[in-house]
Amino acid sequence: MRVGVLTGGGDCPGLNAVIRAIVRKGVQEYDYDFIGFRDGWRGPLEGVTVPLSIPAVRGILPRGGTIIGSSRTNPLKAEHGVRRIRDNLDRYEVGALVTIGGEDTLGVAATLSDEYGIHCVGVPKTIDNDLSATDYTFGFDTAVGIATEAIDRLHTTAESHMRVLVVEVMGRHAGWIALHSGLAGGANVILIPEQRFDVDQVCAWVTSRFRASHAPIVVVAEGAMPAHGEMVLKDGSQDSYGHVRLSGVGEWLAKEIERRTGKEARTTVLGHVQRGGTPSAFDRWLATRFGLHAIDAVHDGDFGKMVALNGTDIVRVPIAEATARLKTVDPALYAEVGVFFG
Amino acid sequence: MRVGVLTGGGDCPGLNAVIRAIVRKGVQEYDYDFIGFRDGWRGPLEGVTVPLSIPAVRGILPRGGTIIGSSRTNPLKAEHGVRRIRDNLDRYEVGALVTIGGEDTLGVAATLSDEYGIHCVGVPKTIDNDLSATDYTFGFDTAVGIATEAIDRLHTTAESHMRVLVVEVMGRHAGWIALHSGLAGGANVILIPEQRFDVDQVCAWVTSRFRASHAPIVVVAEGAMPAHGEMVLKDGSQDSYGHVRLSGVGEWLAKEIERRTGKEARTTVLGHVQRGGTPSAFDRWLATRFGLHAIDAVHDGDFGKMVALNGTDIVRVPIAEATARLKTVDPALYAEVGVFFG
Amino acid sequence: MRVGVLTGGGDCPGLNAVIRAIVRKGVQEYDYDFIGFRDGWRGPLEGVTVPLSIPAVRGILPRGGTIIGSSRTNPLKAEHGVRRIRDNLDRYEVGALVTIGGEDTLGVAATLSDEYGIHCVGVPKTIDNDLSATDYTFGFDTAVGIATEAIDRLHTTAESHMRVLVVEVMGRHAGWIALHSGLAGGANVILIPEQRFDVDQVCAWVTSRFRASHAPIVVVAEGAMPAHGEMVLKDGSQDSYGHVRLSGVGEWLAKEIERRTGKEARTTVLGHVQRGGTPSAFDRWLATRFGLHAIDAVHDGDFGKMVALNGTDIVRVPIAEATARLKTVDPALYAEVGVFFG
Amino acid sequence: MRVGVLTGGGDCPGLNAVIRAIVRKGVQEYDYDFIGFRDGWRGPLEGVTVPLSIPAVRGILPRGGTIIGSSRTNPLKAEHGVRRIRDNLDRYEVGALVTIGGEDTLGVAATLSDEYGIHCVGVPKTIDNDLSATDYTFGFDTAVGIATEAIDRLHTTAESHMRVLVVEVMGRHAGWIALHSGLAGGANVILIPEQRFDVDQVCAWVTSRFRASHAPIVVVAEGAMPAHGEMVLKDGSQDSYGHVRLSGVGEWLAKEIERRTGKEARTTVLGHVQRGGTPSAFDRWLATRFGLHAIDAVHDGDFGKMVALNGTDIVRVPIAEATARLKTVDPALYAEVGVFFG
Repeated sequence: MRVGVLTGGGDCPGLNAVIRAIVRKGVQEYDYDFIGFRDGWRGPLEGVTVPLSIPAVRGILPRGGTIIGSSRTNPLKAEHGVRRIRDNLDRYEVGALVTIGGEDTLGVAATLSDEYGIHCVGVPKTIDNDLSATDYTFGFDTAVGIATEAIDRLHTTAESHMRVLVVEVMGRHAGWIALHSGLAGGANVILIPEQRFDVDQVCAWVTSRFRASHAPIVVVAEGAMPAHGEMVLKDGSQDSYGHVRLSGVGEWLAKEIERRTGKEARTTVLGHVQRGGTPSAFDRWLATRFGLHAIDAVHDGDFGKMVALNGTDIVRVPIAEATARLKTVDPALYAEVGVFFG
Repeated sequence: MRVGVLTGGGDCPGLNAVIRAIVRKGVQEYDYDFIGFRDGWRGPLEGVTVPLSIPAVRGILPRGGTIIGSSRTNPLKAEHGVRRIRDNLDRYEVGALVTIGGEDTLGVAATLSDEYGIHCVGVPKTIDNDLSATDYTFGFDTAVGIATEAIDRLHTTAESHMRVLVVEVMGRHAGWIALHSGLAGGANVILIPEQRFDVDQVCAWVTSRFRASHAPIVVVAEGAMPAHGEMVLKDGSQDSYGHVRLSGVGEWLAKEIERRTGKEARTTVLGHVQRGGTPSAFDRWLATRFGLHAIDAVHDGDFGKMVALNGTDIVRVPIAEATARLKTVDPALYAEVGVFFG
Repeated sequence: MRVGVLTGGGDCPGLNAVIRAIVRKGVQEYDYDFIGFRDGWRGPLEGVTVPLSIPAVRGILPRGGTIIGSSRTNPLKAEHGVRRIRDNLDRYEVGALVTIGGEDTLGVAATLSDEYGIHCVGVPKTIDNDLSATDYTFGFDTAVGIATEAIDRLHTTAESHMRVLVVEVMGRHAGWIALHSGLAGGANVILIPEQRFDVDQVCAWVTSRFRASHAPIVVVAEGAMPAHGEMVLKDGSQDSYGHVRLSGVGEWLAKEIERRTGKEARTTVLGHVQRGGTPSAFDRWLATRFGLHAIDAVHDGDFGKMVALNGTDIVRVPIAEATARLKTVDPALYAEVGVFFG
Repeated sequence: MRVGVLTGGGDCPGLNAVIRAIVRKGVQEYDYDFIGFRDGWRGPLEGVTVPLSIPAVRGILPRGGTIIGSSRTNPLKAEHGVRRIRDNLDRYEVGALVTIGGEDTLGVAATLSDEYGIHCVGVPKTIDNDLSATDYTFGFDTAVGIATEAIDRLHTTAESHMRVLVVEVMGRHAGWIALHSGLAGGANVILIPEQRFDVDQVCAWVTSRFRASHAPIVVVAEGAMPAHGEMVLKDGSQDSYGHVRLSGVGEWLAKEIERRTGKEARTTVLGHVQRGGTPSAFDRWLATRFGLHAIDAVHDGDFGKMVALNGTDIVRVPIAEATARLKTVDPALYAEVGVFFG
């Protein structure tokens, strides 16, 4: 049998590790051959392919990005999208499709699988770690590691100048990166999209930190918002996801802190460096295991399913269920880390 | 109430993060005060203490090691050990003891708690990740990261000289570090203590890798053993745990590979660098949450329990149960990664 | 004799290494004692001090920032500035002052030394590496390392999405960080303040890179400017030096590239992470040797001098000379690396 | 013209950066074409080649090792070695040869160039930094960085257990890696091959460090020797250069320290990890500039010369001179860092 592979959405460290594992096990254990579809759903939609074989995947384990490219193409919005995909799968004699992606990419896979009988297996990918049904997604640990190292570095600058440093990290709808890197980096305030923040409370924490003769670090997720609708929107720049950003919460917040506390504040927007480069050991492990189990699911004919991490086990869940709702930070967990604020 | 804290056994990145979390939450939420006992069980046994307060734990989150020292002292083997501990706890008015350690340290805590009614709460610590009842222990992710980075580096040397590189990593009884770092580092052979290895099979994998025009990396856990009792023991050197090592499996294996395949082979023994230095973001997160939940257990009067990771939740389990058996690598998991051998 | 030490200007990895070396050698070899003046020239101006001794400098070698604080205070602009400094030096019985800083801080030291006979020795500090009379300054290697690692990471994101990635690095008047990190990171375009750039030429290089089926990375120094005065200024945000920035050349350039080439372009502004955190081994070596030689200069009574790196030797040069002109990138050197553009 | 390139001796981070620079500039500026000779002098001796072109060198800048392989083959010891080389150069129509290597590899180039008129240009490569006529060689900064990071990590283990940690680093004849990493890592004793050490003095420093309530780190170069011929040789293991090691000075020293001071001591032998993996930014810069200047030398017909770093300039020196004597650590420089011992 020939198996197709595609990667959709924003790139994420570990994509290549998934591809390598799928191909290695598929060829060696199941005697499959492989074809890569380029740039996410654009590949099967337009019939753009790239060869995939064991030699093609050698050496890619430690490399960030995806060797088969990615895009945000949604084939369900394209004219005759489903028919064109089916035609291209037939044309390339593809019997099953492993789709590696986030909510959008997997949502298409769920529809194609459940409604049109196209043989799809899903592998979850979201650097924000906001897909329900899996404990973690690969790429997240790498992003948290990069953000934590940056926060470690910023502490010494903050201390030397007794300034507030506001660090804006990824997280449009879910605050996982902010929460983990903020905690690991010893931040004094962590703000997440799940809970609107009160600038006065932030300033109180900042002031309390200065009273202890230390300089505060404020970690704020890109998607965090103040409670009182007071944030003036700025347009034009782009966020870490490649979308035009409506607001730079980090810069806005630094100015508010300066204005209200009289202390100097600076902003660092980590941006795209959080999503590139070599994956952490944890992410290589997780991505590889996802790949191995995804090709097992293909072999079992278990379509419409997504692999997921449950404790230390890889399990399978219906894609449709897994993408039905976002996994956000539980208020209880956010409260737990609040002991370190201020 | 005054709470005592001690850290026992080999040091491990994240110990300081646990201590900091215990003290921060204990002081701020429960109004406890704290005392550190120096060098594991030696502290309460001999009454050696160190002050612990919020200022004392500032800045220690990213630092490896333990600010209160560690040792392998077993008070149950000391004359009147239990009585001396009880006397010292009384003398310092300590109402509860948080014991951070591995099998040995926690085994003592279980006995003191279950048999003598001394108020102990446990926090699991083993760089080898071999404590059952918890998905992961802190320090393990850091060790795996360091080993993976070393393997990444050794690949280029192996390739440039077309040599076999044998990397000996920690793991006396359990192969978790070898398994995770070997997989993450793209090793061509991974050998663990749980399964005796066949040198001929290792040589077959090595030869197969050379046939693909690449140089092989062999990752071997310190405690791995050949199948046929053929390993000649060497004495004198010390292993990564600080014990005299009975055998240097890495060096022995490299020589066997050279002898049998005719290819040059070199050994690198990673040793103590795996256990020192700043903890990874994952380990800081896990260690901090362990600390927060351990002090909650103290507050709940839930003694004789150990905090543990279960998926993404921190739960409590009886210490005695958790230390009853070693968590080793499941044969099915080892088989799963075997697809990358050769 | 008592020796005063101060650190002025923006913080820089290696400042603590200098302080430690001065104190270690001063105490052990010359039997001096020490006093730290807080926050650059504010310390001697206002008489704000901090104790400095061997125990105080233990463990600070790997730590970024400065334990005695920094500021941009210029005492020559303060009322009776020189007299107040002299009074405070007398009051604290300080016989010599080691001043660690950049053009501004050292300029004051030169004036105080040459015109007022105050015993100053200088240690050069500029993360931008733009002080003449020394081959390198500490902090620069660390900044280049951080920027290079970021560029390494951004390559994979650029490739996965076939986008242009513009990376804005430090360098207001001199392009050393851009030049070194751009070359080390394999950038396809490097733009420096010393030479106004032609956006059409930049777009030609970008297009040429895409033709080779690869995605371009453009490294631009904060202070680089287009040739034709076409850059629209934006106000409000702050640069990596903590000043209000008049223009965000990175964001502006990405938009121009998008507009002219039709390719997607994203910007990453590295900002303050370039100047914080643990110094590289090279910077620790250089900073330590600067410190050792600075205290030798004090001992020799060689005031008005600055230590400098010349090849592998530490030499002394008149501070006044060393700060007289900026060390910028030579056109020949810039031309040399141009072979990698496009 | 066609230019040949070879890399000889032990691998070293930066070799690929040199090759890439040579090819990029050679093709683009001078219209040369290229051929790689495999495995050092074995390539031209046996006529084993590999294609070298701009596409072949894409992406290799950050990769350790050498894409054209290396060996320690000495063609002057082979039968008709010179004639066979000349024949192969003729056969492949190679007009000039860039030889990248250390003392041995370049020594051959000097002989071939000076005595046989074969057109060779040299690029110095020694991870030990022990080639005279150049301030630094690439690879050295990477090795020092890896060793420093290891020492940073070992400090926390030493402190937690109040043990001596002996770290054995590369350096058979010259102590540059020990000196730089020991200083940067804050070691308490540094031992180099240039000066025989007195074990009693080492123990005195160790004891003095413990008296200050800290645990000592002893950095020892592989080639360091005790003063009194008292070291018992051990055979069998291999050193970081791939040679059978006659002595493991690190393990021997740890045992002596334990015996004489009664303190626990452990050894870590860093080994091959020091020479593999991605080069530091500094090494990429230096290696690239060496490559650019080497191909300029070819273009100028300036054969028998080697490129070298002099301050921040790349200069040319006669190969024969440059390889005539080893660059060892100056006693004055070693004395300078002695202030940190104990």
